[in-house]
Amino acid sequence: MQPLQPETIERLRAVSTATLTTQLFKRGFRNVFMQGVRALRPSTRTMVGPASTLRNIPAREDLDHLGVFADPGHPQRRSIETAKEGHILVVDCRGDARVASAGQILVTRLHVRGAAGLVSDGGVRDSGPISEMDFPVFCACPSAPLNLVLHHAVDIDVPIACGGVPVYPGDVVVGDRDGVVVIPRALADEVATDAAAQEEMEEFILERIAGGAPLPGTYPPSDETRAAYEVWRSSRRKTAIA
Amino acid sequence: MQPLQPETIERLRAVSTATLTTQLFKRGFRNVFMQGVRALRPSTRTMVGPASTLRNIPAREDLDHLGVFADPGHPQRRSIETAKEGHILVVDCRGDARVASAGQILVTRLHVRGAAGLVSDGGVRDSGPISEMDFPVFCACPSAPLNLVLHHAVDIDVPIACGGVPVYPGDVVVGDRDGVVVIPRALADEVATDAAAQEEMEEFILERIAGGAPLPGTYPPSDETRAAYEVWRSSRRKTAIA
Amino acid sequence: MQPLQPETIERLRAVSTATLTTQLFKRGFRNVFMQGVRALRPSTRTMVGPASTLRNIPAREDLDHLGVFADPGHPQRRSIETAKEGHILVVDCRGDARVASAGQILVTRLHVRGAAGLVSDGGVRDSGPISEMDFPVFCACPSAPLNLVLHHAVDIDVPIACGGVPVYPGDVVVGDRDGVVVIPRALADEVATDAAAQEEMEEFILERIAGGAPLPGTYPPSDETRAAYEVWRSSRRKTAIA
Amino acid sequence: MQPLQPETIERLRAVSTATLTTQLFKRGFRNVFMQGVRALRPSTRTMVGPASTLRNIPAREDLDHLGVFADPGHPQRRSIETAKEGHILVVDCRGDARVASAGQILVTRLHVRGAAGLVSDGGVRDSGPISEMDFPVFCACPSAPLNLVLHHAVDIDVPIACGGVPVYPGDVVVGDRDGVVVIPRALADEVATDAAAQEEMEEFILERIAGGAPLPGTYPPSDETRAAYEVWRSSRRKTAIA
Amino acid sequence: MQPLQPETIERLRAVSTATLTTQLFKRGFRNVFMQGVRALRPSTRTMVGPASTLRNIPAREDLDHLGVFADPGHPQRRSIETAKEGHILVVDCRGDARVASAGQILVTRLHVRGAAGLVSDGGVRDSGPISEMDFPVFCACPSAPLNLVLHHAVDIDVPIACGGVPVYPGDVVVGDRDGVVVIPRALADEVATDAAAQEEMEEFILERIAGGAPLPGTYPPSDETRAAYEVWRSSRRKTAIA
Amino acid sequence: MQPLQPETIERLRAVSTATLTTQLFKRGFRNVFMQGVRALRPSTRTMVGPASTLRNIPAREDLDHLGVFADPGHPQRRSIETAKEGHILVVDCRGDARVASAGQILVTRLHVRGAAGLVSDGGVRDSGPISEMDFPVFCACPSAPLNLVLHHAVDIDVPIACGGVPVYPGDVVVGDRDGVVVIPRALADEVATDAAAQEEMEEFILERIAGGAPLPGTYPPSDETRAAYEVWRSSRRKTAIA
Repeated sequence: MQPLQPETIERLRAVSTATLTTQLFKRGFRNVFMQGVRALRPSTRTMVGPASTLRNIPAREDLDHLGVFADPGHPQRRSIETAKEGHILVVDCRGDARVASAGQILVTRLHVRGAAGLVSDGGVRDSGPISEMDFPVFCACPSAPLNLVLHHAVDIDVPIACGGVPVYPGDVVVGDRDGVVVIPRALADEVATDAAAQEEMEEFILERIAGGAPLPGTYPPSDETRAAYEVWRSSRRKTAIA
Repeated sequence: MQPLQPETIERLRAVSTATLTTQLFKRGFRNVFMQGVRALRPSTRTMVGPASTLRNIPAREDLDHLGVFADPGHPQRRSIETAKEGHILVVDCRGDARVASAGQILVTRLHVRGAAGLVSDGGVRDSGPISEMDFPVFCACPSAPLNLVLHHAVDIDVPIACGGVPVYPGDVVVGDRDGVVVIPRALADEVATDAAAQEEMEEFILERIAGGAPLPGTYPPSDETRAAYEVWRSSRRKTAIA
Repeated sequence: MQPLQPETIERLRAVSTATLTTQLFKRGFRNVFMQGVRALRPSTRTMVGPASTLRNIPAREDLDHLGVFADPGHPQRRSIETAKEGHILVVDCRGDARVASAGQILVTRLHVRGAAGLVSDGGVRDSGPISEMDFPVFCACPSAPLNLVLHHAVDIDVPIACGGVPVYPGDVVVGDRDGVVVIPRALADEVATDAAAQEEMEEFILERIAGGAPLPGTYPPSDETRAAYEVWRSSRRKTAIA
Repeated sequence: MQPLQPETIERLRAVSTATLTTQLFKRGFRNVFMQGVRALRPSTRTMVGPASTLRNIPAREDLDHLGVFADPGHPQRRSIETAKEGHILVVDCRGDARVASAGQILVTRLHVRGAAGLVSDGGVRDSGPISEMDFPVFCACPSAPLNLVLHHAVDIDVPIACGGVPVYPGDVVVGDRDGVVVIPRALADEVATDAAAQEEMEEFILERIAGGAPLPGTYPPSDETRAAYEVWRSSRRKTAIA
Repeated sequence: MQPLQPETIERLRAVSTATLTTQLFKRGFRNVFMQGVRALRPSTRTMVGPASTLRNIPAREDLDHLGVFADPGHPQRRSIETAKEGHILVVDCRGDARVASAGQILVTRLHVRGAAGLVSDGGVRDSGPISEMDFPVFCACPSAPLNLVLHHAVDIDVPIACGGVPVYPGDVVVGDRDGVVVIPRALADEVATDAAAQEEMEEFILERIAGGAPLPGTYPPSDETRAAYEVWRSSRRKTAIA
Repeated sequence: MQPLQPETIERLRAVSTATLTTQLFKRGFRNVFMQGVRALRPSTRTMVGPASTLRNIPAREDLDHLGVFADPGHPQRRSIETAKEGHILVVDCRGDARVASAGQILVTRLHVRGAAGLVSDGGVRDSGPISEMDFPVFCACPSAPLNLVLHHAVDIDVPIACGGVPVYPGDVVVGDRDGVVVIPRALADEVATDAAAQEEMEEFILERIAGGAPLPGTYPPSDETRAAYEVWRSSRRKTAIA
């Protein structure tokens, strides 16, 4: 898989997950938004990056004891130690947030390695200190108990479920205040382009609505509104260039 | 239906939803508080107004596509375009918050039209920008996907369910940090009056408790405490007048 | 039961619930963290204290009316009026948060009596004013309706369930940003000691990880890392003494 | 709306809800099967008929008392008293099965009026006697309490939700051992025809699989298997005619 | 507490839980039917008897091991060993049915002791053999694991919750195909009498409805229908006497 | 992995899942029983066999269309086409039973191939015809819609979750009226042996309890009861031999 184009990342950083779900809905995708997964700390910065994945199954008492972490190949540890720059580690906890899927030390390592974020449909521990880090973490909720109580990390970089959504390694993950959307990799460029265009149009529409325009004719835009938008857009671009 | 009396609205703005549920419990009402519905952004201002309603049923792929919004009579759009000043739009999403029931543009239109708030037991998208607006929005949670994925807006101003509570058009909706309570319209005046009286009494009781008084005799008040309250109340009123 | 040792309380205040669940997991305890119970207002201070308990069963219309509070022996009121200094009142609401288990007046009385906090797996009303108090309250969520709608307070200081966890009177309750952990009373001293040691070690590990050390060899620590830790720790202690 | 064609009803009676969901999936419908709704008594007969609907919202103590049934216009009673021959009454209980939506007397009246069945996503009381009737009733589960405890019947023959599926009056409802599927009215004829064809083909495939044929080439059928099917089918028809 | 009158028990055996919930609703009780609790094996016989209770809290690994059963005072074992003739043992499992609350040996002992039934909102193991016993068992579902995995039996004959309903020792428990209703002890006699009267009336109404009478005027009965009922009833009694 | 010993299978067929969970609890395993998974048709025969597995993630509209089954390598089809004699296919549907994980044709192929059963924590379609087959199928519930609506079969014979329990390929799966237990492969022989011994003892205990013996001294057995058991057992064996 080729790296994502820098302008795709840049465009995705500038749009909302709301807009992205609309673009994906237009293309027939109805299940792209993770349910029950939110930013540990609301932020104005949008998280964007390709997905790496970690899959958990339920723990078993004889296999999942503290000794397992002595093995550097333990999948949870490996998923973090091998995290790629700019990637987002997405963890399948089967939506079970009764325990944590990561804590401050692992999140710090992810951050140091240059990862772009962490997403889990399980819990996250040390939520206080992590909230103060400049690193986006999305999860179901804070949860103190260690992962071994309920999770057995089983493999990495396989297709998984997270928040009810399929996540294939390399899919593009975008997170903001509303939550996390997963864009199939092959569609990332065109969705980013169209989402940017949609948001520019909606910025214009929002101005009109804020100024008192009625919904009919404005949202969605009539031909007249579209024409006015084209004028607004050209004039804005000229201003930007000037 | 006659407009709500201005002093009823004023009184309701000054009391808490907690007090209102107690007043309604006294009158035999046990199910008046919406479950799972909260302010998108906690605020100190209490939301008050009569309910207008929008009812959704589950979406159907052939009926619920982006083209429907071209129709100015689409119930979701009409519910917003015809919103009355001071009213609160209450949206029945069957408690399904996997998608949004409104976003920034529609909320802005509601705001411009002078509505007093939006309540939904579904999701709301664009939760970041909406949180910065001076307009109360109560919902189940932020959720990016557009309504069409799961909801078909079917009619407006009919009795609905929201957050497990019956809402009849014209019922008085009050929202604060605890959540949203629905007051049957016919009871709004008396409940407002009695709630204000209850809160005045409880202000006195709270002062005593904060000052070290024990619960017995104070909360609920004994005859002695009630007498002391009357003195406190008269003296306060004199001060207020003086 | 003897009072908790002051140094145990001091140690527990300095560690996280995450560390405590790990210490308890080491001792074979897998269910010590309350599910779905969070601080009404996130805070940096950790709540610590022995548990007093209040048990609720579902309300019955003929038994649970507003008149019951006239009885000073009503278990809810008694649980608060007899709260001991430094104790935490833990309330079993069967995880039903549709109504409140306490409000501002009762919480104020708890505070005045010197209790160390309130924990409930039900709702709490007056969440706005309570959030401004310097008193830790953990619950499922804000909820306006009074307890009588759904709860009948039945007895105090018996073993209960709260947030899915067994709570025996005297167990040590610790709450922070992640949530609430319950430590069996007999283990409190040793768990506090070992947790403090674990956190000191992890502080060192975190420094190394933040400085770019890889997980293997660092977390968990190899013999080499452990040796380095001993040096770091001795030097730090000298500094502290000097 | 014209009555359903008799051959459509006949074809639908001969096919399974499983086949119907496949036919609807082919046409882009992914949400046509009611969740959590089952036959009170499993039976070999398939229920088929157009939908009439009844909508409930949550009950309110002042409105929903036993006296309401004295009004012959009460929507629940009216929905049954006006039931049309061959129709299926579909009741929206918001998936709340804590109380009943009908009992033996109402079901008997439905039966006497010639209705083809009752479907509810709430409970049904008198489940013992009703199970012995020769009348199909599908619901969430048996439940003794009367509807007034939680439901307020509000209107009839409007579009509703039932079991998470949109139901428009006139849609064709089919129920068997697996559960209940709702076919949009306009598609009923073609779906019935194609479902019958699919089942004939699958009967042939099942014979082959039962006889030891491998899945590849058989299910789905290769060109060769399709050819063999055509021979089988022609020969069977000849036999049927002869 | 005095033993239940034999005619009360007899009357309750002859009526349905549906009728009993209606009688209790008339008296202001809205939460008397256990949710999610059903007969392990549907039967035509109605279970009736006063409640004895057993309360469980969540298990703790150090306290809940197989050794505990060596203590004859273990509350689960004691609740069965001291079961009174005609009583129904009602077990509070906090609605957690992931493990069993009893199995074949304990149920057999209950049966031998003359208990009238077992009700649990948890699971029951050995559901196959128990289904073949002539002893009514109501529970959430079959579940193989032993109680110690999740439950700690803590005390007996205290007020409990079961299936979301308050159960006080001595309350009268009635179970049939629809499920289990709990009648406050003080109301048992009058509720039994009125329920019997209601069912006699409904038997008449059902006959009329089955014979083609419309709902209006019949259900609820008009004065005319009531008069006809009185005639029917007198004539039936004469027949019964003759 | 070596085939399971025939006597292990024979012993497991003769014991209950209840006994097996007790044996596993003794060895420290608390999560071995699938939650929410039951036999489609209760039967007296116990299902036993080693697990093969199929893993599903959520479907994606562009990948999961009817065309995928043309590929004989599609994991769902392959899992069935390569099913080994005596094995049980265990399907991970993430506990989502809104759609089917198999239907009559696939189950028939499994049966023809000599598989010992099918277990899924999703739905199963064609539940009527499958219930009449002499082949054990355990699932969450009947469900008509085809798997593609919600499931994407992704790989086979990897460790999975099913019903909340970890399942490793080769683990021994046992199903009866109570449900399904998963025995770690390495423990199968000893657990089978000890379970058989436990059941023989409990057969004796049950006889005594049925004959009027009290729980204390009998269950668990005192030394005296154990001695009586030894006599009973020897005498029975002699009889069996004679």
